[in-house]
Parts: sequence; structure tokens; C-alpha cells
Amino acid sequence: MFQTFEAPAAPTATAPRVSALRTILARRKLDAFLIPRADEYQNDYVPACAERLAFLTGFTGSAGLAVVASTSAALFVDGRYTVQAPREVDTTIFTICGIRSNDLEPWLIATLRQGARIGFDPMLHTLSEVEALRATADKAKAKLVEVARNPVDQVWGKDRPPLPSGPILIHPIEMSGQSPADKIAAVQKDLRQAGQAAAVTCATDSVCWLFDIRGSDVAHNPVVLARAIVPASGKPELFVDKSKWTPEARAHLSGLVKAKPPEALWEQLAALKAAGKPVRLAANTASWAIAKALGGATGRTRTGARVVVRGTDPCAELKTVKNAAEIAGARAAHLRDGVAVTRFLAWLDRAQTDGAVRDGRIDEIGAVRQLEAFRRDTGALKEISFPTIAGSGPNGAIVHYRVSEATNRALQLGELFLIDSGGQYADGTTDITRTVAIGSPTREMTERFTLVLAGMIAVATARFPRGTRGVDLDPLARDALWRRGLVYEHGTGHGVGSYLNVHEGPASISKAGFAVLKPGMILSDEPGYYKPGAYGIRIENLILVGEPENVGGDTAMMGFETLTLAPIDRRLIVANLLSPEQLAWLNAYHARVRKALSPHLDRATKSWLSEATQPVDLDGAPPETRRS
Amino acid sequence: MFQTFEAPAAPTATAPRVSALRTILARRKLDAFLIPRADEYQNDYVPACAERLAFLTGFTGSAGLAVVASTSAALFVDGRYTVQAPREVDTTIFTICGIRSNDLEPWLIATLRQGARIGFDPMLHTLSEVEALRATADKAKAKLVEVARNPVDQVWGKDRPPLPSGPILIHPIEMSGQSPADKIAAVQKDLRQAGQAAAVTCATDSVCWLFDIRGSDVAHNPVVLARAIVPASGKPELFVDKSKWTPEARAHLSGLVKAKPPEALWEQLAALKAAGKPVRLAANTASWAIAKALGGATGRTRTGARVVVRGTDPCAELKTVKNAAEIAGARAAHLRDGVAVTRFLAWLDRAQTDGAVRDGRIDEIGAVRQLEAFRRDTGALKEISFPTIAGSGPNGAIVHYRVSEATNRALQLGELFLIDSGGQYADGTTDITRTVAIGSPTREMTERFTLVLAGMIAVATARFPRGTRGVDLDPLARDALWRRGLVYEHGTGHGVGSYLNVHEGPASISKAGFAVLKPGMILSDEPGYYKPGAYGIRIENLILVGEPENVGGDTAMMGFETLTLAPIDRRLIVANLLSPEQLAWLNAYHARVRKALSPHLDRATKSWLSEATQPVDLDGAPPETRRS
Repeated sequence: MFQTFEAPAAPTATAPRVSALRTILARRKLDAFLIPRADEYQNDYVPACAERLAFLTGFTGSAGLAVVASTSAALFVDGRYTVQAPREVDTTIFTICGIRSNDLEPWLIATLRQGARIGFDPMLHTLSEVEALRATADKAKAKLVEVARNPVDQVWGKDRPPLPSGPILIHPIEMSGQSPADKIAAVQKDLRQAGQAAAVTCATDSVCWLFDIRGSDVAHNPVVLARAIVPASGKPELFVDKSKWTPEARAHLSGLVKAKPPEALWEQLAALKAAGKPVRLAANTASWAIAKALGGATGRTRTGARVVVRGTDPCAELKTVKNAAEIAGARAAHLRDGVAVTRFLAWLDRAQTDGAVRDGRIDEIGAVRQLEAFRRDTGALKEISFPTIAGSGPNGAIVHYRVSEATNRALQLGELFLIDSGGQYADGTTDITRTVAIGSPTREMTERFTLVLAGMIAVATARFPRGTRGVDLDPLARDALWRRGLVYEHGTGHGVGSYLNVHEGPASISKAGFAVLKPGMILSDEPGYYKPGAYGIRIENLILVGEPENVGGDTAMMGFETLTLAPIDRRLIVANLLSPEQLAWLNAYHARVRKALSPHLDRATKSWLSEATQPVDLDGAPPETRRS
Repeated sequence: MFQTFEAPAAPTATAPRVSALRTILARRKLDAFLIPRADEYQNDYVPACAERLAFLTGFTGSAGLAVVASTSAALFVDGRYTVQAPREVDTTIFTICGIRSNDLEPWLIATLRQGARIGFDPMLHTLSEVEALRATADKAKAKLVEVARNPVDQVWGKDRPPLPSGPILIHPIEMSGQSPADKIAAVQKDLRQAGQAAAVTCATDSVCWLFDIRGSDVAHNPVVLARAIVPASGKPELFVDKSKWTPEARAHLSGLVKAKPPEALWEQLAALKAAGKPVRLAANTASWAIAKALGGATGRTRTGARVVVRGTDPCAELKTVKNAAEIAGARAAHLRDGVAVTRFLAWLDRAQTDGAVRDGRIDEIGAVRQLEAFRRDTGALKEISFPTIAGSGPNGAIVHYRVSEATNRALQLGELFLIDSGGQYADGTTDITRTVAIGSPTREMTERFTLVLAGMIAVATARFPRGTRGVDLDPLARDALWRRGLVYEHGTGHGVGSYLNVHEGPASISKAGFAVLKPGMILSDEPGYYKPGAYGIRIENLILVGEPENVGGDTAMMGFETLTLAPIDRRLIVANLLSPEQLAWLNAYHARVRKALSPHLDRATKSWLSEATQPVDLDGAPPETRRS
């Protein structure tokens, strides 16, 4: 089982842990301490030993920041977690707040005395985070103080899990499409053009991409806990624990890198600082500790040279543009994954017709297990790409809901069921959301589903010139909803790796999507709508940015190829809320899904898919009477 | 006459002027010198004495930067001026380049030796510009050098026009809706909340807004050449030449401000620096010289306090949100202006039916004069709000075309005529663009016109939640064009002042529109399409941001009220390229225009308007046969 369903730590553990922490803070003359949901590698998913935020607060979301002061404490979470956080956390101890720095600021001002000392662990916060925190602390007339031994770890003591020790695995060139030697050469060319002596590569997925390695150190993202220093010429240094080296890894990397233990990083950073030449650091993935070891954000060497040069991680820039092998892999992975998802959707419908749903025999955990089973049946599943979000009825309104034994619900007639899941395959990473009618949907559900679908199609069919950023497409997904007073509080899409992180920078389709979209990028397209306490809707396909092409007019335009292959619930579509072009796209998509998947399906599923992908037409009967 | 039509300086003047400049640069040991299109107040329109860029290069556009090096020279212009610049400039002397800093950088690298000294006038560049230029110079391994006496002025010598000396005029409270005392109190409250000792208000329109004064020192923007220092408490200091004071101005401002001559600014800045308390400065309007006088961007006083705090101009933030009196004024100004524009459009159509166009008797200058005459007929016109852009046929493709005797063309059958104009009235500033068919348009013209119209309506009818920025609406205007391979290289909309600058910050609807839209803001909505050498299309209305309201759904939504009242050429509309909702908006808009304007029109114009605003319907005859 890749997914587990234990309920999070009972919030009863919170009180003694916070109390113990406060004793340590008082001893260390700290007025407050920051606990981010982060590990020292800035991984999306953190190893168990770095789950300090969950250990202390009970909150299991993927992003958040707790601040514990002497008599009060707050947990800052973003819009995805405003419903989930109060359920998991003892709110008599932690006030739940928005995560924006302008929310943190008034809280600090209200809570702390002037001159208060706010402790932070320099390994866990990035350079840019600390700068933002410092500005916030300034306004609150407080002082940010680096703290060497993390006080939460002192509270955790011997119960703290050990560091993971997964082996280094090889990602074959048939999948990666480019040898590590070529990638290193590309990064080094970039560095030389920028006149920089080296780049410190802190993001684990960048390290894995660069050297064609994968790992199993954290859940769902197949990364190795590793960092690298890539010099402008010569061999890169790879900092990784010796327990991870296998004979295969040695054979693959020998001649390519100088292998070093993780703790050797610090002396190498000191050497770079002493050399006094510019070193590129990505302020959003490099920890404050690393920046400081190089002389700090604005630090100069004794000769006055600036060492730290902020820039984009050169690997991130190159990795985000998929090559032909990676694109072919993505298409193969999506075909395979589409078969699994379609078998699941057919199974779910069968559970409606055979009475299993009516009898309460299908619950969220059962659905997650069944979907995972169909993915395993492909024989190629390495991992799920994130914990499946399976929200029935009101649970669907929790944007990043993760079902546990405590929250598990049986699917009920008259509800919507939102299922957001993905698979990690050696040839690609998938991520798909479908929202399905359980029994008869209400008119409101079908209308709002259709408006979300209209937004999803608006992005999928968009055309745009070179230089367009994700922020320039995000509104297309929201326009139809906004016109009817409906919003969703998350981005429309994120970048996706090639058998790597399911959330991959730098591009996104969102209000903060300032990276330019380039041919070869893979992104998600996933607008939604959430009615708290009632239901959630999200429809997600992955899309590939194409080369500019002639679409008439006088400017070659880029566009997207939809990679995801699985039907969208026709029973939830109010055809006349879509434009004729949107309806045509939907019907063409469904015809493509049917044609692509049918050869790989058993007879019953093939028959179900044929029905589920029949054209929706404007003049047809109302959707309620067209149930398959 | 508010608009003049002299052809720009013959480019033959360029060679001796550039040669004289190079002699001075050599003497002053400068390898290059920067000539921005800017005055020391960072006005949109600069006084004649500050037209250094036009004097040197012949280029008359509203934005640009020339760099003159010892043997080569370049003029950097943005997308609006790539057609115009080569027509006005001697391209054997100046290479015409894009204005982005990444274009400047390779030019500097290719042109200058390592260690080259690039001179700039610290009065003419803003703090943020100099920082960007410094980074660019760094990459070119060159050095930016402040230059005290502007070398271009030395070349200009006695022919340089004097500083303007328009009097300070009073903007009555019936128009401004808020007394200067109240505005000063609002700014001071803002400063105290931020813990700042003062703000240096460098933008002339901010100074005019704050004190309810207007002027005539530059063309089209009714501003006074003035700066102010607003302390957190006590009287603001107003720095303005004594020639501008009238008895009325003294009466209006006595008790409100301490009057100072312009040159007293520098000692006051020195005093602020010496006081060592934080002073707010807007990096986009404060000159480098002013920032430097306060100790520089990162400068600290001897006690270590930081003096310059970058922030938004507090006046700009307050001014952009119009109050009830300003909104009422805007509505009245648009009704008045709509009458003038409609009389003009009817006149233009009459010139088509009575043979004047066919006979070549209507040219661009004649059209501009006629439109200005109709605006004067209102009896309320103070000024035109910018030089009217009247582009027939291929001239319409020049985005910021300004007709002169040299470029003037007769309107010809089978062409489009683009006319972008506005009026300054005591109660409001207008800005409207209409594109009109002269004779029979081609199918391509009508299709592209309709796609531009679809974008204009998409913004005008948009709904959006609190927190939405202009960048989040900009794509709605482009989507229909992009889907057909058509683009326009300018923003969709800019803020507009209340009898102030027609381009007013901080909000815009554009790729850089990061300011949040707030109820009471007035913006333009003006997508376009330009086919070089053939025709240009732009359709522009001004729109007012409304309060959030219930539109169904569950989130109150903001939206726009269209202020501009004038018909859109029905002969250019291909109805089936608009959605049913867009067509309904157009017909409702035309009905509103007819109802609002008719009582104020003569019989013939009223009859023309009635015809011009008849509903467009989907099933009607093709547009060619529906000519009025």
C-alpha cells in the first residue's frame, strides 16, 4: 500500500509538547519560535523526521507555519487548509490564521513585546523566506534569531524517526532522453555565460534530474536527499549519505561527479566563499544556512567581490522543458494511467447500478484502494504521485482533503465525489482529477460543474504568443465562474516533472505564474469550485505546451496538447452553458479518449467507456434524463 | 488650437547635433551618454525645454531612450513606436532597438569597451530606472556616471526654450469632492501608521490632487511644475516657482502649505537626511538626484537610521480611487464628450454620403480639427487630454501615430479610420477611440474589428472578486484575438485622472498591472489590432470599477460601469463572432448611448445616431448590406 489512512496524531498530544517547547524557549531566551512545514532540503514531501509541524500541532497539510510564543501560538495556513486545519489542531492552543505575511505581521505586533527575539532554524527556511520574515519582524519591532539545535527536536527526543536511507536508483537514458554529461555541460555553459564560478543546487529534484538518478527518501516524489555544487568547469560535487550508494550508482556516476558526504557541503561552501567568485543560488530553494555559509545574501569577500548571486536554479530552467523522450514517456504514462482511471470510473458506476453505493458499501478509503489497485494492475506503477484526494459530499469541499479512518465517509446518492490522484511511472508522472455524480445531481451541481469545465476547456484550447506567462492564462479558467459569483482559492495549474515531483517549478498557471511558458513544459489545468459543507468540484487534465504554429491570422501561436486520457462525467454537463467551440472540444476529446483507451480495456469497461464518451449535444434532452 | 501639426524637426538637424554632443562627451571623458524622454518632474508630457530626445534624434514619441556613444548611437523605443521611430529618425546615425533592458544590455556590450563611462543626468532618471541601468551597465562591465550639466543642453544652447510659467489655478471642491485639508490629513495618517516622518511627493499630478490645484505648464495634463514634502504632522512644503503664484492661489493655499521656491527642495531634503528619520519615496517618480539628496537608496545617516523608505506615493494611492463628486463629474464629462464625438462621427458619415471623402476632401488633420471644434462647442473644453491620434489606412497601424503636415493623408474609400482622442473638462478627463469604416470594409477588416470588440466587451462585462489585479483581466481582452493568431503589443487599459493626467497610476489592465483594482478607479478598456502598412483597429471606452455586488453564486463580485457614450461602428461587426451575451451587451450599450445623448443632439445627428445604434442581430443580413 502506498497510501495509508491513519488518523493524524490526536490533538491531545499538542498541549504537553507545546508546553515542553515553551520551557526550552524560555531557557534559550527566545520569545517565540517558528515551525515551518519544511525539511532542510525544501522538499514538497518531507521525511518523517522532519514532520515537526505535524508533531507539534497535529496539522498534516503540505504547507504551513506555526509560531509559538510564551503564552499564545498561531498556525498560519493558506486557503487550501482553512477547513482542514481547525479539524486537526487544538484551537484552544493554536489560533488558525491566513498564511500571508500581512497576517503574520499583525499577529506578531499584537503578541510580542518590542525587541522580542523570534527564533528560527536556519536549515529550514529559504533565503527569500528569511528576508520576508525579517521585514515582517522589523515592522513588529522584533528580532529574528538563528537557533542552532532545533528546540522542537529537543522536545521530540528519542521518538524522532531516523533520516531515510533509500538507495540511489538509476533513471535510464531511454527515459531521460539526455545523458547526465550533456546536462552538466548545459548547466556549465549557462554558468560560464553568466560569468559565475558555480551553482549550488539545493533542490533534490534538480539534483536527480541532473544526474539521472531517482530515490525513495520521501513519499511520492522519487528524489534522493542530496545536494550538488556544479562548478563552471570540472566535476560537480554530489553531497549524499554513503548509505545510499549502490554498486550500480557508483558505476553510473563514476567519472561524472565527486562523491562527498552531506556534511562536507559546509567546507565546500566556505571554500567558495574564500575564492570570492560569484556563485549562483536560487533564493527559493537555498536555505538561509547555505546562503550564510557563502557570506550571506549581500555579503562580500575581503576583496569586496560579491559571492552570492541570486538566480534561477539552472537545472530547474532546463528540467522544466521536456525533451522528445520525456514527452513520448509522458504520453505512454498517460495512456497507461488513463486505462487505470477509466477502469476505476467504470467500477464506480457499476457500484451505483449494482446497489453497492445505495447500501453504503463504497466509502472514500475503499475508492482510494480500488483506484490504487487498478494503477498497480498496470504493472508499471512505482508510487502514487501524491496521497489521493477522495472527497465525497462535504469532504470534496476541502481542497487538499486527505481521507483517514477518522474522516472516512460512505459515498451517498445525491452527492458529488471528487477524486484527485496520480501515478509515478518510470516514463512519467500523472495527476488527474475527476468529479463524479453519485446518484442524481442537483441543478446547482451540474451548472457549477459545467462552469468549472468551461474554465478547464478555456485553458486547454487557449492560444497564446511567445512570451506568455501562466498568469496570462489563469483568468481564462476563472472567467465563466466569476461571471456567476463563483470563485476558487487556488492556482489553476502547476508544472509537473518527468518521473519526478508532481509539483515542479518554475512555471505555473496562477496569479503568481510569472515564468514564461515554453514548448515542452507540462502543466496541470485544474479549476474548481468548492461549496463548504456541501460539495467540491475539480476537473484536472495535464497539458503539454506546444511549439508555435499557424492558426490563421499573422502571428504563430502556442497552445496545449492534452495528455490526460479519461472521460469527464457527461451527467454533470449542462450543454448550453458551454460555447459551441467548448462543446466541440469536449466531444472531440471524448472520441480521442475512447479511441486511445479502448484497445487496452476489458469488454465491460470498453462498453462503459463507449457510453460515457458519447457526444453531448446542445439540443439533447436535459442531462438528468441522459444518464448512462 | 490645442493641437498643432508641424512636421517634426527634419532629421538633417541630427548629424551636427550628435557630432557636437560627441565633442562634449569626449571632453568630459564620457564614452556614452543617456538621453531619456523625460523631464525633471517625470511628467508624461514634458515642457519644450525638456524635449532633449526630440531635439537630438527627431523622435517625437512619448517614451524612449537614446544612447550616444563615440562612434555609434541607438534609440530604444517600445512596441508602440517601432513603426514611427524609423520614419522620424536618421537611421544612419541611430540604430532603432526595442526598449527592454535586455535589448540595451547586448547593445552596450557590443558597443562599449570594458570600464567605459556612461553618463546620465541624475535629474531625469528615477531611482528605479538608475538601479536597473546600473545592473545593465554592470553586465556590460561599464560604469554609470552622474553628470551635472546636461551635455545636450550645452549643444542646445540659447535656442533652448525657457521653463514654462503657467499660473496656479484652483480646482474647486465641487469638482474634487474633498478639501485639501482632508486630503493632507489622510496622507499624514498614512505616514504616521507607517512610522514615517515625511513623504516627498515628486509626481506633479499628485501635488495637484493633494492641494486642489491645476496648471498649464505642460501640454494636455493640467499640472503645475511643483513638488511637495508632506510631513507626518504640520504643514506641507510646496516647492513651486514664484511666477506661478496668483492672489487666488495665495488665498486658496494660505494656511495649508509653506510656499518655497523649487531650489529650496535640496536644503529641505538635506535637513530630512540630517534628521535621520524614515522618509517615503516612490522609486518610480522620485529622481535619482532626490534619492541621493536623502542619502541614497540604501543610505543611512550617521546614527545608522535608514532615511529613504521606498513606498507607493500616498497621494497616488488615494487619488486613484475617485469619490462621489469625481464620479458624478466623470459621468457628466462623458455625456458632454459623447455628444461631441457623436457629432463628429455623424459628420464623418455625412462626408461619405455627400462625396467629400470620395473627392479626397477629408484628411486626417481636417478630422482632428473638426473633432476638436465639436469638443470646443461644448463650451467646457479646457484642453484636449492628449494629441488626437487620427490614423487613416496604414497610418492607423502606427499605435501612437500623431498626424503632421508631413504624414497627413486624405481618407480613402475601402479603408479604416482610427481616431483616439480625449477632452480635459473641469469635471473630468475623457479618452475614447473609435475605428470607422470608410467605404466598404473587407471581410478581414470586419472580422478583426469584431474580435477586438469581443475583447473590449469581455473586459467591460467582466466580474471579479476583491483582490483582482489588472493583470488578471488583461487576458480576457486578448483571448478572442489570440485564438485566431492576432496580437496587439500594448496594454489593454490605463488609469485615468479626474481633470488630471489621462495616464494615471498605479492601476492598469496589462501584463504589468499588479495594482489591485478598487471601486472608484477609472480605467480605459482599449484592445486593438494593427496590420502594418494596411490598417489599425482600436476600440476604447473608459470604465469605472464598481462596488462588489451579488450576481448570483456565493461571492459578491466587482464589475465595471462603462462611462464612455458613443456608438461603435455597426458596419464593422460580424455578429456571429460575438457570443450572444456580447451581442446583448452591445445592443444594450447602444440603446443607452441613444437615450443619453439624443436630448442633447440636433435633429440630423439624433436621426443619424438612431440609425447607428439600431440593434445588431445574429440572423440579420451580412454587414455589408446593412450600411446605414
